[in-house]
Amino acid sequence: MYVRALSQLLDAGSEVVDSKTLGRLIRIAPAQVRKDLSYLGKFGKQGQGYSVPYLRDELRRILGLDRRWTACLVGVGNLGQAIIDYPGFVPGGFSIVAAFDSDPELVGKSIGGIPVRPMSELDGTVEASEITIGIVAVPASQAQSVIDRLVDAGVQGILNYAPVAPHVPERVILRNIDPVLSLQSMTYYLLQGSRPD
Amino acid sequence: MYVRALSQLLDAGSEVVDSKTLGRLIRIAPAQVRKDLSYLGKFGKQGQGYSVPYLRDELRRILGLDRRWTACLVGVGNLGQAIIDYPGFVPGGFSIVAAFDSDPELVGKSIGGIPVRPMSELDGTVEASEITIGIVAVPASQAQSVIDRLVDAGVQGILNYAPVAPHVPERVILRNIDPVLSLQSMTYYLLQGSRPD
Repeated sequence: MYVRALSQLLDAGSEVVDSKTLGRLIRIAPAQVRKDLSYLGKFGKQGQGYSVPYLRDELRRILGLDRRWTACLVGVGNLGQAIIDYPGFVPGGFSIVAAFDSDPELVGKSIGGIPVRPMSELDGTVEASEITIGIVAVPASQAQSVIDRLVDAGVQGILNYAPVAPHVPERVILRNIDPVLSLQSMTYYLLQGSRPD
Repeated sequence: MYVRALSQLLDAGSEVVDSKTLGRLIRIAPAQVRKDLSYLGKFGKQGQGYSVPYLRDELRRILGLDRRWTACLVGVGNLGQAIIDYPGFVPGGFSIVAAFDSDPELVGKSIGGIPVRPMSELDGTVEASEITIGIVAVPASQAQSVIDRLVDAGVQGILNYAPVAPHVPERVILRNIDPVLSLQSMTYYLLQGSRPD
């Protein structure tokens, strides 16, 4: 969020930003902004604000956003095809370089320029292509076993779209795309607007 | 997250839980758990822990999770079809009751039991079906104008899947599904495991 806000500021021509302005952009208190940034390094001088381009580039470097990460996708149904077509990954630093499916009808096809491979090629491809991240777009019932296979094959991060809370070893970083949690986080506020009392 | 953790505890047969156990389940400090819950009501007695079923049901009621929310979907491409098929919404309390697309090839078809309507029917349907939430699965270039139409039609919440940061009036609650932010939040940790130094 900091990197995005700083990129916006840079696009708008800002060279220097203070913690108050930066905090307002990402809805975090100025004191927390200073605390977050001081945890990652020493970026500014008291009372002078932060240099926008320097802070942005340093954060990108520290967070590993200045390099390209390779990912594979498992599950090439409607959701998987939408993920391959999603235009945000490449500008964000992520390339999907391989796709897998257990459906023989899909294997061998090319989706968005990426050939769909059989599950039997998963281990070899993850190793040969040095794939770091596995994106999981299979039905809930298959998600845990697919994630186990990805972890065994050597991926270090999992982005899970299936509506389950999978288990991964501690060394593997898991993120879940959970639209229900997003919806449930808004109902409290919707209720305030709609409650008939 | 509290409601999910409490439901898990209930499924596991727990009747009472303390802030330490609850905090561990959702990775929040016990003091923050007590603070969060005290903000919403008075649920437990000092030193006695919380009643799991009572707390779960009260939180569900307060958060508006004990009722059914109606949503419509705009954009019935691969992503939209995956959203219609997503099995998590209904158990989470959300029903997609209408779908819209501007593509005449899709209009009139039925996807997952939901007829695809033309955009011209959006306003009337939102009003007639008392739709509260709009789910947006259109390309980035169309997202803002679709969101503006949904807001004008009267939805109070937007779940946006397009890779843009749209603007909504203050009274409308916006949540973005942002897989790139999820991926970018893991690269720092991936770097620690992979940095060759």
